[in-house]
Amino acid sequence: MNTKDDISNAHNRIKSHIHATPVLTSTYINQLSGASVFFKCENFQKGGSYKLRGALNASLSLQKEKLERGLATHSSGNFAQAVAISAKLLGTKAHIVMPENAPAIKQKATIDYGAKVYFCEPTLDARESTLEDVIKETGASKLHPSNDIPVIIGQGTCAYELIQQVENLDFIISPVGGGGVAAGSILACKYFSSQTTVIGAEPKNADDAYRSLIAGEIQASINPDTIADGLRTQLGDHNFPIIKDGIESIILVTEDEIISAMKTVWNRMKIIIEPSSATTLAAVIKSKSKFTGKRVGLIITGGNVDLANLPF
Amino acid sequence: MNTKDDISNAHNRIKSHIHATPVLTSTYINQLSGASVFFKCENFQKGGSYKLRGALNASLSLQKEKLERGLATHSSGNFAQAVAISAKLLGTKAHIVMPENAPAIKQKATIDYGAKVYFCEPTLDARESTLEDVIKETGASKLHPSNDIPVIIGQGTCAYELIQQVENLDFIISPVGGGGVAAGSILACKYFSSQTTVIGAEPKNADDAYRSLIAGEIQASINPDTIADGLRTQLGDHNFPIIKDGIESIILVTEDEIISAMKTVWNRMKIIIEPSSATTLAAVIKSKSKFTGKRVGLIITGGNVDLANLPF
Repeated sequence: MNTKDDISNAHNRIKSHIHATPVLTSTYINQLSGASVFFKCENFQKGGSYKLRGALNASLSLQKEKLERGLATHSSGNFAQAVAISAKLLGTKAHIVMPENAPAIKQKATIDYGAKVYFCEPTLDARESTLEDVIKETGASKLHPSNDIPVIIGQGTCAYELIQQVENLDFIISPVGGGGVAAGSILACKYFSSQTTVIGAEPKNADDAYRSLIAGEIQASINPDTIADGLRTQLGDHNFPIIKDGIESIILVTEDEIISAMKTVWNRMKIIIEPSSATTLAAVIKSKSKFTGKRVGLIITGGNVDLANLPF
Repeated sequence: MNTKDDISNAHNRIKSHIHATPVLTSTYINQLSGASVFFKCENFQKGGSYKLRGALNASLSLQKEKLERGLATHSSGNFAQAVAISAKLLGTKAHIVMPENAPAIKQKATIDYGAKVYFCEPTLDARESTLEDVIKETGASKLHPSNDIPVIIGQGTCAYELIQQVENLDFIISPVGGGGVAAGSILACKYFSSQTTVIGAEPKNADDAYRSLIAGEIQASINPDTIADGLRTQLGDHNFPIIKDGIESIILVTEDEIISAMKTVWNRMKIIIEPSSATTLAAVIKSKSKFTGKRVGLIITGGNVDLANLPF
């Protein structure tokens, strides 16, 4: 069972290692949406995404001798970098299993942060069995990107900061992928801003969380065909109960709506956000009447994009 | 003759209308360069560039009845938007002459800000004669993007703010195009931070300012073939004496160096800067030994790029 103190303790635990990221606004986007929109910019976080928060909180929750034996995960994306940075900051070793088809830029970034990278075939089975081998060999502690409670609590420190930076938010919109930051945002609002309603944003082409809410149990994400690469994963048994209990609704957005919102932010705010983050603004624009006149915080989860492969 | 008070008065005049833009830093870029680099982010300024500062200062220096008759300029770029925004903020009309081949996105942005746009053939002669016609008809006041003293002083408020935000800068590097922001930066340092040396950054493929310093008189910019679209113009008779007198040197950078620096900033800092701004970081990286261990402020002039036409 998590408590109010878990989130504030997590924030105290990690805050000297992370950036207290800024909250930005845009007159143009406020006019466009009719809402007061607040962008919580985790694209400026170390490693370019909020994932560092959860990785650090989980790492710092390990016993000292466990931590010394290293951190391990399998990831093709932002969590790989987050674990690599956590290990570097805490003076231990990161062991990262990556599918051999992971984007070159993410491979390079992870290696640059000092991690040991193990390549495997790009299947979930290969990733998990390779990771088990690595853990057996090294004694490193396994971190899950979204379904460990300390990770969820760590991701919740992002909304926790946002609530402190912006008063009287009516809504916080979080992307929903693996469920970590959505569940963390729900806990932060539950304990620190009960008048703030949490809404999820999800690609129509990867609507497993939307379907899970309807079904009342976790639905699989099968061949999700979305540009929002961070949202292709599915919910887990630790975060789903929190989401089911605490989310008001999930707004589905199309690929065109995601790309259009992303382009609006790049063009008007001059900041680089990844497609997964753009789902939140796309949701505000799509459900305009719901948010008119409201104060809406958006979790801008990250800014890691391949500049050689942009959708515009 | 300009004075210390001109700059602080200009800042007082315009500050309620502009964003006090942030200064950002990057651990990665500090490691890469060996210097402490401070990015003065005018890409976050209204209209996406520092140009608003000069346009506003010049406009607010007009007599009331002059201002009421409107503002006029010819521009294909950032200055058009700056004049359009100035007119909107000050409750008057902007008349903008644009070559018919100006990027669609800049045409649209200028019109969106409420300006009246007059299209002409893409030659300097056509631009100037069309502008004269517009002024004759409307009585609007002509603003030059870089060679009016009130504009130069207004552009200087950017370095003036930077000096207040970051103590003990050894250098400020400004791009050199038309010469307005370079001259303004020199005046700001002369009066408010005399230990700070101003250096120019200029594309090798548009090296007219570099050649002008050698020749001791303004050299023409003939068919400049550079991606740094803001730096294709040449110096003017009001800013050249200030630059000649106050600049330490101009560092020339190649197109590849500009693109590489721009990509580094986008990838690592998650902010959108235009090629003209990237010349400053390219200069730091190129002349690494000069800046090692130094505190270096970069004037990041703007973030207006055509996302459909990126160099990477």
